[in-house]
Amino acid sequence: MPKIVDHLKQKEKLAEATWRVILRDGLERASVRNIALEAGISVGSMRHYFSTQSELIAFSMRLVSERVKHRISSISYTGNTLEDIELLLCEILPMDEERSAEMEVWLGFTAKALVDPTLHTLSSEVYEELRRAISSVIEALITSGLAHETLDREVETERFYAVIDGLAVHAVVMPSRLSPDMIRAVIAAHLQSLCK
Amino acid sequence: MPKIVDHLKQKEKLAEATWRVILRDGLERASVRNIALEAGISVGSMRHYFSTQSELIAFSMRLVSERVKHRISSISYTGNTLEDIELLLCEILPMDEERSAEMEVWLGFTAKALVDPTLHTLSSEVYEELRRAISSVIEALITSGLAHETLDREVETERFYAVIDGLAVHAVVMPSRLSPDMIRAVIAAHLQSLCK
Repeated sequence: MPKIVDHLKQKEKLAEATWRVILRDGLERASVRNIALEAGISVGSMRHYFSTQSELIAFSMRLVSERVKHRISSISYTGNTLEDIELLLCEILPMDEERSAEMEVWLGFTAKALVDPTLHTLSSEVYEELRRAISSVIEALITSGLAHETLDREVETERFYAVIDGLAVHAVVMPSRLSPDMIRAVIAAHLQSLCK
Repeated sequence: MPKIVDHLKQKEKLAEATWRVILRDGLERASVRNIALEAGISVGSMRHYFSTQSELIAFSMRLVSERVKHRISSISYTGNTLEDIELLLCEILPMDEERSAEMEVWLGFTAKALVDPTLHTLSSEVYEELRRAISSVIEALITSGLAHETLDREVETERFYAVIDGLAVHAVVMPSRLSPDMIRAVIAAHLQSLCK
């Protein structure tokens, strides 16, 4: 088994090298050659782990999504209070350096996924996952009696999801404009506007 | 003067070739060489118009922003009714094929601007311009007496701007999920929630 573990660890190392290249030089520089150079291995060895650049990028993309999911699962969340919901949403949003870097890389992935079918499937999966998370927040607000039962669940899910992703994009594009405090204030205002 | 006009026209032709390459193959393929090929001119002639790839991309980016501004200025907008405001916002959002293509290209630009200082300056300018437009919508809602005077202008501007850009990103990433009708419903729900 150690071989499999090593293989996985090496893949993660390469995925992290991919992030560094993307963050520093942009996605267009994330070639197999440049990533091998960054990770300090030969282009030939890269082929043991990823046979195409698209595979490598897909693996890095999945890693970002796993990290976000891991952080969410490690917070205690009941969904019964507004504080709880705010805590969950702040795990998705770029509130600190680590999460800003993730979002920055993610923005590059999203743009690339528009023209790469493998990445598009993956980005659609993550889109649906996040949509379900937002939808469950709306549901929790209604069942806990905090929000009006007459809310249109579909429209409110799309609206809240748009607020979250809009904030995420603005926070990485204009970090000086959108401080973590402002992000929190916007989330709080939105939750407030949904409640009785 | 005709020479200057021709020069500008040729630049626009090249900018449009840039869009086509980005839409079809992604931003990373938008090299000076590929764009020359797409526009049917030699790489050598390209140098008369743009000396670097970054300049070419910046020109195309500016062209998208000019087109949106032109569309906005050609609608009659008083800002005194909700219908008026909805009309304005729908000019920014990807409600048809042309505007979806613009947004798709824009998403690529935005990702690239994170690592390219020239593009970053330009993308910040457009960010501020749109922010001012959203801010004037909030102001119009208050002064026309439609919205509560107690609205926090800063927070509500960021929130509305997030809704707009979140919808725009989702509409190009998952067009099957977010129909033009759903976009209209979300905008209407948001405006409604701001009003008395």
